[in-house]
Amino acid sequence: MDKINIKILAKELNLSTSTISRAFNGSTDINKDTRDRILALAREHSFLPNHYASNLRDKKTNTLAVIVPEIANDFFAQAINGIEEVARKHGFYILLYRTDDIFEKEVSFVNYLNNGKADGIIMSVSGEGNDHKYLNNLRQKNIPVVFFDRVYEDIDAPKVTTNDYDSSFAATEQLLQTGCRKIAYLVVNKSISIGKTRMQGYVDALAKHKVPFNDELVIDCSNDEKVNAKILTKVLQDIKPDGIFCSVERLAFATYHVCNTLGVSIPNDLKLISFSSLGIAPLLSPALSTITQPAFEMGVKAATLFFEALENKDVDMPKKHHVLKSKLFIRKSSE
Amino acid sequence: MDKINIKILAKELNLSTSTISRAFNGSTDINKDTRDRILALAREHSFLPNHYASNLRDKKTNTLAVIVPEIANDFFAQAINGIEEVARKHGFYILLYRTDDIFEKEVSFVNYLNNGKADGIIMSVSGEGNDHKYLNNLRQKNIPVVFFDRVYEDIDAPKVTTNDYDSSFAATEQLLQTGCRKIAYLVVNKSISIGKTRMQGYVDALAKHKVPFNDELVIDCSNDEKVNAKILTKVLQDIKPDGIFCSVERLAFATYHVCNTLGVSIPNDLKLISFSSLGIAPLLSPALSTITQPAFEMGVKAATLFFEALENKDVDMPKKHHVLKSKLFIRKSSE
Repeated sequence: MDKINIKILAKELNLSTSTISRAFNGSTDINKDTRDRILALAREHSFLPNHYASNLRDKKTNTLAVIVPEIANDFFAQAINGIEEVARKHGFYILLYRTDDIFEKEVSFVNYLNNGKADGIIMSVSGEGNDHKYLNNLRQKNIPVVFFDRVYEDIDAPKVTTNDYDSSFAATEQLLQTGCRKIAYLVVNKSISIGKTRMQGYVDALAKHKVPFNDELVIDCSNDEKVNAKILTKVLQDIKPDGIFCSVERLAFATYHVCNTLGVSIPNDLKLISFSSLGIAPLLSPALSTITQPAFEMGVKAATLFFEALENKDVDMPKKHHVLKSKLFIRKSSE
Repeated sequence: MDKINIKILAKELNLSTSTISRAFNGSTDINKDTRDRILALAREHSFLPNHYASNLRDKKTNTLAVIVPEIANDFFAQAINGIEEVARKHGFYILLYRTDDIFEKEVSFVNYLNNGKADGIIMSVSGEGNDHKYLNNLRQKNIPVVFFDRVYEDIDAPKVTTNDYDSSFAATEQLLQTGCRKIAYLVVNKSISIGKTRMQGYVDALAKHKVPFNDELVIDCSNDEKVNAKILTKVLQDIKPDGIFCSVERLAFATYHVCNTLGVSIPNDLKLISFSSLGIAPLLSPALSTITQPAFEMGVKAATLFFEALENKDVDMPKKHHVLKSKLFIRKSSE
């Protein structure tokens, strides 16, 4: 890589050397976009003018922490891609952490970040119903937090979610309209916000169509494949639902596997719709009906809010709650 | 979280307080496993004895950087899970970076790490055929590097790969044995190590079965869905292969989509095998034949080698090259 200095940066960006200097000494007398462009290019070349380097480094780590329950999951993988695309434009890198849906891991990682490892956090949470005081330490240090998909309602921070209630209502209604009367709702943790909201859409759609709600049809599953196979085998053999609505994509795959094993035909014996961001849902046998969240766009939005929070110091920022729309794709599995 | 001190740690681990102290002051007079257990528990409780805290922090970031070409990909997602599981046991966190297969991004990120952001790097590379001098800076600073799957042969560092040549040979042979004579090889970047090795298995299997190699059947694809759709539509319409061997899973999905659009039947008109770590490959229509790499185990192995390199200072370490075995699953798509 070529040696680089302020003159070269100025030439490459077609700006004056004094503008470049202003970007580095934190002057407010410079357009924000221009400053960002200069710093991004400088970082790309790993260039920091010596006399400002230590000063800048103390203030900023250029690292954004992203906390998610899992990464081997299409929704989170795409959302992370969206976050990363925005982060890169700001010259930021991502510190990624997976909680496996275990609250203690989330707390441990947030405490680790308190030591100045990152300039802020974008998170999809795992510990509802717990005490969230550990997040207040971040606020005292002006470390912004943005929630996406799974949020803590009791914490003031920008939130990005999707219209889960409407989507769940529409999916359940579609199953009812094809004739299903015994629809199971599969969920991993029904106490978390998305679990509750998605279930409410299911419950209200049943009520609208005068199908009595039956608690036995709410199936609390797991993140473990083998456990799910056991649970679902029992459900299909004993309860025999004629429809299944999955709040998480892995539960749809588990259902497909168990149906193959038991010789239950989708959609003849059982119709199925699932929340899923799987790009190859149409390639499954049968093609899977999905509620598809705009995962990448959610990541982009969350990251955009994060950088606004970091740069603007907008006092109303923490009240912002953006709701993006999911799409319902009806395919063979629920026809 | 409860207040914690050396006494409580000692009690919880059933060790003496002097052993706990030895762990923190870096004494060599303590069993390594014991020391690791103590530090892991201490980190879990965000506990560092005050007088050692700054000292320890200077030496270690407890951060492991992981560089991969993409994350919305089952192979890398599973490998990252494997790395993360080992890292967590050592009280380490992961700084994740995605290069999009762009060499300049890899260089930029490695230079960023040179400032002490991480204690080492596990990477799947993107820039073969380039100058890899930027990695030498890491060695001067004793920052270990471990390669997995995609490696730089010219750099002395521990490597974890799979038996790609054998797998590719076996997959091609299976297609030949079912009667295919015009087998296309789909690759994203044929100049990288895995692209070359996998192609050699294909070439040698053809030779063994006396089927002439035809350069026109080596199809250089892209990471872009739309570009691949165009390329593959042209291939299926003009070249009309009777078999396809994909070196990357996304090329198999692209082929399925194009076959659906063009009305080409898999496996009647075209048989297909792909490298893929997709857990739901058996659920596709038709079920996809795969060469499945032990992705999670590769991550575990790479991380294990990393921590050995970090702790043991074994001089022969960089010469280590571990080759794990993939499995060939013949399913409907190549029957």
